[in-house]
Amino acid sequence: GFAKVDTQRKARNGYPEVIYGEGKTVEQIVAITEDLLTEGKAILSTRVSAEKAVVLEQKFPDGIYHKDARCFVLNPSSKLTDGYIAIVTAGTSDIGVAEEAAITAETFGNSVKRIYDVGVAGIHRLFANLDDIKNASVVIVIAGMEGALVSVVGGLVDKPVIAVPTSVGYGTNLDGITALFSMLNSCSSGVSVVNIDNGFGAAYNASIINKIREGE
Amino acid sequence: GFAKVDTQRKARNGYPEVIYGEGKTVEQIVAITEDLLTEGKAILSTRVSAEKAVVLEQKFPDGIYHKDARCFVLNPSSKLTDGYIAIVTAGTSDIGVAEEAAITAETFGNSVKRIYDVGVAGIHRLFANLDDIKNASVVIVIAGMEGALVSVVGGLVDKPVIAVPTSVGYGTNLDGITALFSMLNSCSSGVSVVNIDNGFGAAYNASIINKIREGE
Amino acid sequence: GFAKVDTQRKARNGYPEVIYGEGKTVEQIVAITEDLLTEGKAILSTRVSAEKAVVLEQKFPDGIYHKDARCFVLNPSSKLTDGYIAIVTAGTSDIGVAEEAAITAETFGNSVKRIYDVGVAGIHRLFANLDDIKNASVVIVIAGMEGALVSVVGGLVDKPVIAVPTSVGYGTNLDGITALFSMLNSCSSGVSVVNIDNGFGAAYNASIINKIREGE
Amino acid sequence: GFAKVDTQRKARNGYPEVIYGEGKTVEQIVAITEDLLTEGKAILSTRVSAEKAVVLEQKFPDGIYHKDARCFVLNPSSKLTDGYIAIVTAGTSDIGVAEEAAITAETFGNSVKRIYDVGVAGIHRLFANLDDIKNASVVIVIAGMEGALVSVVGGLVDKPVIAVPTSVGYGTNLDGITALFSMLNSCSSGVSVVNIDNGFGAAYNASIINKIREGE
Amino acid sequence: GFAKVDTQRKARNGYPEVIYGEGKTVEQIVAITEDLLTEGKAILSTRVSAEKAVVLEQKFPDGIYHKDARCFVLNPSSKLTDGYIAIVTAGTSDIGVAEEAAITAETFGNSVKRIYDVGVAGIHRLFANLDDIKNASVVIVIAGMEGALVSVVGGLVDKPVIAVPTSVGYGTNLDGITALFSMLNSCSSGVSVVNIDNGFGAAYNASIINKIREGE
Amino acid sequence: GFAKVDTQRKARNGYPEVIYGEGKTVEQIVAITEDLLTEGKAILSTRVSAEKAVVLEQKFPDGIYHKDARCFVLNPSSKLTDGYIAIVTAGTSDIGVAEEAAITAETFGNSVKRIYDVGVAGIHRLFANLDDIKNASVVIVIAGMEGALVSVVGGLVDKPVIAVPTSVGYGTNLDGITALFSMLNSCSSGVSVVNIDNGFGAAYNASIINKIREGE
Amino acid sequence: GFAKVDTQRKARNGYPEVIYGEGKTVEQIVAITEDLLTEGKAILSTRVSAEKAVVLEQKFPDGIYHKDARCFVLNPSSKLTDGYIAIVTAGTSDIGVAEEAAITAETFGNSVKRIYDVGVAGIHRLFANLDDIKNASVVIVIAGMEGALVSVVGGLVDKPVIAVPTSVGYGTNLDGITALFSMLNSCSSGVSVVNIDNGFGAAYNASIINKIREGE
Amino acid sequence: GFAKVDTQRKARNGYPEVIYGEGKTVEQIVAITEDLLTEGKAILSTRVSAEKAVVLEQKFPDGIYHKDARCFVLNPSSKLTDGYIAIVTAGTSDIGVAEEAAITAETFGNSVKRIYDVGVAGIHRLFANLDDIKNASVVIVIAGMEGALVSVVGGLVDKPVIAVPTSVGYGTNLDGITALFSMLNSCSSGVSVVNIDNGFGAAYNASIINKIREGE
Ligand SMILES: Nc1ncnc2c1ncn2[C@@H]1O[C@H](COP(=O)(O)O)[C@@H](O)[C@H]1O
Ligand SMILES: Nc1ncnc2c1ncn2[C@@H]1O[C@H](COP(=O)(O)O)[C@@H](O)[C@H]1O
Ligand SMILES: Nc1ncnc2c1ncn2[C@@H]1O[C@H](COP(=O)(O)O)[C@@H](O)[C@H]1O
Ligand SMILES: Nc1ncnc2c1ncn2[C@@H]1O[C@H](COP(=O)(O)O)[C@@H](O)[C@H]1O
Ligand SMILES: [Mg+2]
Ligand SMILES: [Mg+2]
Ligand SMILES: [Mg+2]
Ligand SMILES: [Mg+2]
Ligand SMILES: [Mg+2]
Ligand SMILES: [Mg+2]
Ligand SMILES: [Mg+2]
Ligand SMILES: [Mg+2]
Repeated sequence: GFAKVDTQRKARNGYPEVIYGEGKTVEQIVAITEDLLTEGKAILSTRVSAEKAVVLEQKFPDGIYHKDARCFVLNPSSKLTDGYIAIVTAGTSDIGVAEEAAITAETFGNSVKRIYDVGVAGIHRLFANLDDIKNASVVIVIAGMEGALVSVVGGLVDKPVIAVPTSVGYGTNLDGITALFSMLNSCSSGVSVVNIDNGFGAAYNASIINKIREGE
Repeated sequence: GFAKVDTQRKARNGYPEVIYGEGKTVEQIVAITEDLLTEGKAILSTRVSAEKAVVLEQKFPDGIYHKDARCFVLNPSSKLTDGYIAIVTAGTSDIGVAEEAAITAETFGNSVKRIYDVGVAGIHRLFANLDDIKNASVVIVIAGMEGALVSVVGGLVDKPVIAVPTSVGYGTNLDGITALFSMLNSCSSGVSVVNIDNGFGAAYNASIINKIREGE
Repeated sequence: GFAKVDTQRKARNGYPEVIYGEGKTVEQIVAITEDLLTEGKAILSTRVSAEKAVVLEQKFPDGIYHKDARCFVLNPSSKLTDGYIAIVTAGTSDIGVAEEAAITAETFGNSVKRIYDVGVAGIHRLFANLDDIKNASVVIVIAGMEGALVSVVGGLVDKPVIAVPTSVGYGTNLDGITALFSMLNSCSSGVSVVNIDNGFGAAYNASIINKIREGE
Repeated sequence: GFAKVDTQRKARNGYPEVIYGEGKTVEQIVAITEDLLTEGKAILSTRVSAEKAVVLEQKFPDGIYHKDARCFVLNPSSKLTDGYIAIVTAGTSDIGVAEEAAITAETFGNSVKRIYDVGVAGIHRLFANLDDIKNASVVIVIAGMEGALVSVVGGLVDKPVIAVPTSVGYGTNLDGITALFSMLNSCSSGVSVVNIDNGFGAAYNASIINKIREGE
Repeated sequence: GFAKVDTQRKARNGYPEVIYGEGKTVEQIVAITEDLLTEGKAILSTRVSAEKAVVLEQKFPDGIYHKDARCFVLNPSSKLTDGYIAIVTAGTSDIGVAEEAAITAETFGNSVKRIYDVGVAGIHRLFANLDDIKNASVVIVIAGMEGALVSVVGGLVDKPVIAVPTSVGYGTNLDGITALFSMLNSCSSGVSVVNIDNGFGAAYNASIINKIREGE
Repeated sequence: GFAKVDTQRKARNGYPEVIYGEGKTVEQIVAITEDLLTEGKAILSTRVSAEKAVVLEQKFPDGIYHKDARCFVLNPSSKLTDGYIAIVTAGTSDIGVAEEAAITAETFGNSVKRIYDVGVAGIHRLFANLDDIKNASVVIVIAGMEGALVSVVGGLVDKPVIAVPTSVGYGTNLDGITALFSMLNSCSSGVSVVNIDNGFGAAYNASIINKIREGE
Repeated sequence: GFAKVDTQRKARNGYPEVIYGEGKTVEQIVAITEDLLTEGKAILSTRVSAEKAVVLEQKFPDGIYHKDARCFVLNPSSKLTDGYIAIVTAGTSDIGVAEEAAITAETFGNSVKRIYDVGVAGIHRLFANLDDIKNASVVIVIAGMEGALVSVVGGLVDKPVIAVPTSVGYGTNLDGITALFSMLNSCSSGVSVVNIDNGFGAAYNASIINKIREGE
Repeated sequence: GFAKVDTQRKARNGYPEVIYGEGKTVEQIVAITEDLLTEGKAILSTRVSAEKAVVLEQKFPDGIYHKDARCFVLNPSSKLTDGYIAIVTAGTSDIGVAEEAAITAETFGNSVKRIYDVGVAGIHRLFANLDDIKNASVVIVIAGMEGALVSVVGGLVDKPVIAVPTSVGYGTNLDGITALFSMLNSCSSGVSVVNIDNGFGAAYNASIINKIREGE
């Protein structure tokens, strides 16, 4: 085939290869999915448009398409962790990226708590949800614009914080570069960062860390 | 002389010309100061190095050099406003810029309240000082790194917030560009921004606004 | 719901939460509007496309859609300030941003004077309107390309100048970054700046300042 | 004093405030150190020049200055974790940043394994050390230039990888921005990133994660 | 005509002028093709859309349109070199650029070996194909995202490596700039670089070098 | 020698080769000067430091070192044009670049009128000098910071305006890039631009144009 | 109306206001055209799409739409200069910008000589046309990609060279920024530069200079 | 020791490890040199300052320090190739980078022909040396500023051209980024590019290619 699917990844990295749907034809996604199916593991396709999802749902009736997350999932983990990953967003526009993170985490067997739209413009909303954030195993903070929420959360918790800048905003947000650089310069320690809009990558990291706690 | 000093500025703008000391020889600063002296107004020179200050203090024994602010002042306003300008910084490294703002504001006759080192990494320090910030006529917020303090303050007060990004930080702080873009993208309304490290400009704006309150 | 609407904002900041329409579905705008309606305050939605406006006008027959401003307004302030905000543009292409500022200001109860297309290429047009600019409480200057108008106005008035760079131009205008950096470097004092095309933010700031004059 | 030392940080974040020595006078470092001493915790000062270290060693004879790391340490943790943090560098020029990470991790009580100069230009050096990397609890990968080592390591381990771009290189390395962006775009999953040259931040994150494994 | 076709190029440079189809109308491509036909040499048009190809195939029935490569070819070289050019890609999304390189090389008479989807996230795939890469005369490595594959290959072979950054990726990939700068900073020697997505340019260079080996 | 001095330039371009002193040793400048001396034309060396000038003055006692301009001149043109070049600066800090332009123009036989420190912050200074600007053959406008003076002058004259951005300013002036982009986006027509701080290049252009007027 | 048309521009600048069609509705162009018609001067509208041109041709039957140039012209100058402006392009893709320049120049009464597709990849094409370039009054050189043609022409002529970078190219051409910076750094003197794709601006400048030669 | 010297590189890549002297202490260079000495191959250290060279010359009396190239060489190849590498520079300021290339090439056993200061501002100098360039096996072209020489040479030869941008210039040369991007966008085919100021890398590539011709 056109692709050399990495069927040893689960053994090497603990997680099977995930299909990045952007720029792939639906035929290519189907072909790779079939390759991976033989392994009997969870199969996650990210960045899948609604149009492609229609085809995938016909081909793989057991699969579920998560519209906000733009993810297609087959054979998700049936058992979830005790500890949970908190996924926190600054605004409502960041929810798409947050759902990509949430579905990724759940597919890989993690419990997730969603805490959306608690940005610092109305900081009382954050404090109202602080206990849920503090009790998580890992915290993912997702924000566009100036990304200030990351530093505030980072200053209040003793858990690893994984920050996801989003491309939400206009003008000098520079499609997310401003939020990214802001997060990399956080005055709070304990924060690490992934690529702009990379909900998948944040959840993948969070899952590895959350599983440590579970003793896996 | 080499310069065309703008002696009509006080009439036109409400404030006399201010001397920007960077890149001027001390002889040039002396010459312009002498031109302005004939007007009998407050004379402020900013970005004056300690070396140049020695010469200025000899030439103009009535003048005072403010070392942290790097400002040299002659004939400051003797009467201060009732309302005050709050000058808030995120870290201790921002104090130089904050003092440039404070001395500028005081020279022009404004009362000032300094609230330094209350960045969001330890946000309780901000809340401990919140009343002083809320009761100001205008708030200047000065921060480097990711500049998150601006958005938090902006979300908590109903006064104009003037943000000053500083070049404090390293790596992706890009000498202050990151803090600047962060502040321009603040999720809180009511924030406007001046150039990187421009304590003078922030105070000049704040003074105009504070004087409105005083009914000037 | 999906959003945590900030219903305490009027108490905290003096102004209710404003709906940023870009990237929200019309259903989301309707839902948030209904949440805010219970408070009986002015409700402003910005960045509302003509298509979405049709739905909003049906849902809220009392509302008015301002086409140039792309704003939808319910319950605007019925009483306007004595002092006024001058809104000045360099060209005709900047009028969209100017109207976003004007409608925002009026919705919040400010008198506004519009002075459009007086850029420095024909500077006599500016001087012909100078009295109206000088007599304002606050001046908003809106310009794209090189943004030179800001410095000229800033050098002629003794009121706060809020500058709005626009994305108007091509090539090295860099979608407004050039105008923005130009304004941040203005050789005139008394200028502060908001994000590119951010007419709303400029008016929000101007309104706070204008209300000070009114003794509010 | 000039600073508001955050004495509640250990309770809130699990770690006491760390002194960032860059841009602070040695008097300021001494003053903050004395504030923190009363808490009886490990005290770490980073970015301390050799000149400042001389003064600190006189003032605090129990302290140790780590020259390569440019860190000054008082009361380091006496007990180390069972699991260890692997610190991997691409070249010899990255060792300064790596030592900042190593000393930070050790001061906070973590075992550390140093694996330096194993960049992909001679990839057999990496494979020769792969077992030590795979058996770590967390892996810190430090590289300048193109940062390719991060993706290779990320593809071979099932542990969290924290990547630190360094400013090592010339021309289009852009003082570390190229390595940073390279790492954020890693084709391997499980990688998160901190600011350029931020060995401290990487170790702080790694320590939180490593302590989870220890059941702390 | 509108163009001054460079009919002396084959004599001067060893290769005839190649038609860059982007931004040319199909009429312009036809006209230039007819000019070049009189010389009786291989005629290559790159960046030809499927729509334009339909017209070209009608006009020049002997020509072949290569869909993945987006190239239209007339009179390709009938005799291929003994030595071959290895064309290596990191992912499946880089195949379009790789095919532009492959068709260019073959049109000019070079043997080509395609080795696709062997990126470093699953580095065993590269080692499985290493002999084919090492035995080539020249190696073209094509990668987007962080471009790490170039440094790994560069460290393993003793042949010239020509690197092609692609615009594949998102966020901080900056449309290929990150891969480009990464490749220019490769820690492996023996690598030179062409413009983003420039499969044609890489193959043109590789062909000149490969022909040296053939003693042409 | 190490250099291939272009002794045909006067014939080809109307002006002899000019020595760019930056980065050349004084021995190299002496050697090239001696090569050019045999032609009996004006010899101009730009970017000559005061230290190098001491050596040049000893070697070539007829030469004159212009300290502000940092130029060393031998055999300047003895006859000046009737029409003149107006050299206009925004501030006093731009005078170094202006003098490089002025000395270049005079060395090549042009009359020059210097109009310095008339920036738009005090625009009445410009109007007070407008006749001198309007009556020039060509106008050079030199400005740093936001470069607004160029657009104002460009809108008032019917002569070619050559704009020189300077690196004067701080923060977002980006070492002159902001002034440059501002000038390239001037809303006034009739403006062309040279490199940052390139007083020499502006004068060279102005001289060619001024000589046309003289009928040369 | 919405616009303050600058009807004094011809008197002040020697040329009437020109209509920049981009982003204006056809109704706005018609309205401004009617304002300008009363002056009886040449009326030029640039950046006019084919769709808008249909309406303009109906409204103003005497007008001519130049398709390649995207310009609509009414009352062009009937008498042309003796001296001519040479308009030189590197490639065929630069012709659109070149025609904007040519039509602008002709509308304002200048003779023009078009010399297209003579880029340095086949430098003999340039030498074949060198006499026509050398005999011009002013030379406009238009190039995208790396813009090398400007330096070669600049080194061969003794006339003012106005360089226009175009956005032609891909990858690191950065939409024309690379050609622009290349031209600003030309090793040949006598070159000044206008904004990317600004054929109009180049011709406006060239016209002023060409008219000097004519003694206007 | 601190470094893992890659003693297998000669076997793998055909060339031994080269010491990059920048940022290494002279002790580190000595230590690595001693490691490599045991292999009995040519040892090249680049970016060696004059101060470090003094120590190296004492330690290794057989070594030679090339001052312009800033290279220290031990055991250079005693036998040179028949074919030669042409090293061409635009200006005299590019000679340092050119010598780094020349010494690298000679150390590895290549004949070299130096053709310096033939930039396009005086293009007759290039044509006077064209035969020597055309007869080379490989051509290295080194240029700062706008880098136009690369495209002109690339259009005239049928050999591989390796382009080296230099950081020579000021203002918008952006420390070599402009020359780099210019070269990557060359309108001439057959050009590939290395990092800014990377004379070593260009020569390393050229040597591999030149040796192919020799049948090695
Ligand atoms: N949304 C995503 N963002 C970033 N990387 C992803 C995403 N989804 C999948 N990936 C990664 O991309 C790899 C597949 O790349 P490819 O070979 O191009 O399909 C997967 O193994 C994941 O590591
Ligand atoms: N090397 C370092 N890099 C980044 N952050 C640091 C470093 N060292 C200390 N810090 C952080 O900087 C904070 C102190 O900042 P400040 O109030 O400016 O002294 C500490 O609490 C740490 O979180
Ligand atoms: N200050 C200056 N700025 C820009 N270019 C200059 C300057 N002074 C001289 N030049 C140009 O640089 C050329 C000499 O370059 P070079 O061969 O490196 O000495 C001269 O012929 C001038 O065209
Ligand atoms: N193609 C063009 N590029 C740049 N500037 C132009 C162009 N066409 C017209 N202009 C200028 O734009 C001005 C009109 O701007 P506006 O008031 O926005 O219509 C004219 O007076 C010209 O100076
Ligand atoms: Mg919200
Ligand atoms: Mg602090
Ligand atoms: Mg107009
Ligand atoms: Mg090494
Ligand atoms: Mg793949
Ligand atoms: Mg001045
Ligand atoms: Mg062509
Ligand atoms: Mg030279």
